[in-house]
Amino acid sequence: MGLVLPFGEKPSEPGIEALVGLVKDDMNRVNALILSRTGSDVAMIPEVANHLISSGGKRLRPMLTLAMAQLVGYGADDPERSGHVNLAAAVEFMHTATLLHDDVVDESDMRRGRVAARVKWGNEASVLVGDFLLGQAFRMMVEVGSLRALEILSDAAAIIAEGEVMQLAAAKNIETTEDAYLAIIRAKTAELFGAACEVGPVIGERPAAEAAACRSYGMNLGVAFQLVDDALDYGGAAAKLGKNTGDDFREGKITLPVVLSVRRGSEADRAFFRRTLERGEIAEGDLEEALAIMRRNRALEDTLERARHYGAVARDALAIFPDGPMKRALLEAIDFCIRRAY
Amino acid sequence: MGLVLPFGEKPSEPGIEALVGLVKDDMNRVNALILSRTGSDVAMIPEVANHLISSGGKRLRPMLTLAMAQLVGYGADDPERSGHVNLAAAVEFMHTATLLHDDVVDESDMRRGRVAARVKWGNEASVLVGDFLLGQAFRMMVEVGSLRALEILSDAAAIIAEGEVMQLAAAKNIETTEDAYLAIIRAKTAELFGAACEVGPVIGERPAAEAAACRSYGMNLGVAFQLVDDALDYGGAAAKLGKNTGDDFREGKITLPVVLSVRRGSEADRAFFRRTLERGEIAEGDLEEALAIMRRNRALEDTLERARHYGAVARDALAIFPDGPMKRALLEAIDFCIRRAY
Repeated sequence: MGLVLPFGEKPSEPGIEALVGLVKDDMNRVNALILSRTGSDVAMIPEVANHLISSGGKRLRPMLTLAMAQLVGYGADDPERSGHVNLAAAVEFMHTATLLHDDVVDESDMRRGRVAARVKWGNEASVLVGDFLLGQAFRMMVEVGSLRALEILSDAAAIIAEGEVMQLAAAKNIETTEDAYLAIIRAKTAELFGAACEVGPVIGERPAAEAAACRSYGMNLGVAFQLVDDALDYGGAAAKLGKNTGDDFREGKITLPVVLSVRRGSEADRAFFRRTLERGEIAEGDLEEALAIMRRNRALEDTLERARHYGAVARDALAIFPDGPMKRALLEAIDFCIRRAY
Repeated sequence: MGLVLPFGEKPSEPGIEALVGLVKDDMNRVNALILSRTGSDVAMIPEVANHLISSGGKRLRPMLTLAMAQLVGYGADDPERSGHVNLAAAVEFMHTATLLHDDVVDESDMRRGRVAARVKWGNEASVLVGDFLLGQAFRMMVEVGSLRALEILSDAAAIIAEGEVMQLAAAKNIETTEDAYLAIIRAKTAELFGAACEVGPVIGERPAAEAAACRSYGMNLGVAFQLVDDALDYGGAAAKLGKNTGDDFREGKITLPVVLSVRRGSEADRAFFRRTLERGEIAEGDLEEALAIMRRNRALEDTLERARHYGAVARDALAIFPDGPMKRALLEAIDFCIRRAY
């Protein structure tokens, strides 16, 4: 059964190049700040932090903070203003701290294509360097001096942790509903995207409607991003296994492709996921069997269909802003996030 | 060889009863706030948090925030003011988060006389609920609206984590110097005492000299407190083993009693600590042997002597404040902290 894709012909592939180009100068400042703030006389701190930070994540979250600040004209009058740079670096530190703590929680061996910090330096170092980065994040935010931005980002910190605990509580439970799953990814992933976007107009002292629009773009992009990630973990729309696939299955994570398969599938399908994901009894060939079940139930296509829905909401959220290069770049970024899965 | 103690006769034992009594009403507000802020729809969060929070620590750190606010007259004009209550609860959350993460780092089985949360709910829950409490702490601080208080407490959060990493790096290294050890406990313990005290005069908008005095009291009391704890772990001045002794030895922790013993002791003493603390080869009777070495080298008495030095500095720090019930209560609290070890 084929799936007709609206952008199947790939005439000019939408990318994040435009976005990357527009925030390039600011991002250089962010990178310099990140480097200087992982410094510590305690040698293990820069070692562990740089292991992860230099491993070349896309830095999508801090890029969003810079993009939204630029979109609303923050700093246009004074190129010396640095609030957005501080907040962007803080957002990346919050994200990195979460990754370090997640590795301990998930007992992961790999992260961003490298051996996880916890394997190299131990769980202790991952927990404590994560805490250090979180402390540094708050320091950088406080320096900006905006109480409202502090409120948004400290709310996000608490909600992200709450989302992680929700995920822990739902782990290995194939009865998890789509709504429960959505609540988890809203908290653990989308909230930081939303906060990263919202603080731009906030420090630019823009009207509440603009802050709400930016937040909405971020939240919905974040949900779409996570759904696409979940589909990619099973090979994306093509359901083809590659080098970065199957982790969620092996870890017993309940993601939307599983939730949909369990709801739509046969009793045998449910029994399969109960054995593999709930009881963790995984045998040779089970991952391929999971893919076959998902294909039968259109679980990956529809996970991506849901992602496109959130992408569309993100797109509409920016409607209040006039057309311009930054707005176009932000809209292209949505398509880029979703197209990764095809 | 006996030790002459300045307060050996115990005429009227100094306690913290006066301090507890003076902050009682505020502390009830703090306790109510703590309860309300551990609430979450995610059932595991209040469960884990309350396991630790309700286990009856002394709440010394939030008590210090309340005491300093009262000392400088914060809220005297308006009993509705609640900045000190928020900050005190935030300080306790920061402390609780540290304990949860420490248990993971130390792989502890017990905490505050109860089975550690990580044993009951797993490392994951300890890491994530710790993160949640840290997020909630920042939320409560932001509500107060004092950027300077936020700066002090976010600095403290980063420094505490840095101290924990320093301790990790120094672990099992009996060459650790007294200065290196002091730097560790200043960061991991005293910094939070100092910050907890400093924010009182800061939100009371008192002169910098008063904030500095309160901070100095807290820092020095914190160092004394940790040194006394270290001595107590080997039975205190009497070097008598009890139910809460020997943990540091079994975990291979290098504390001042060890540092002093290694420096003053014989080659055989050093070989003993190298085997037991560095290599972790601990046999029946080794704890008693460690105590004998410490006794021979006056290591516990002099650890407490160092504690008394810091207690004296803390006392002098309060000299700029006029005499009064709160000042007397704070001075008594110093003696209480030290006397625990006799």
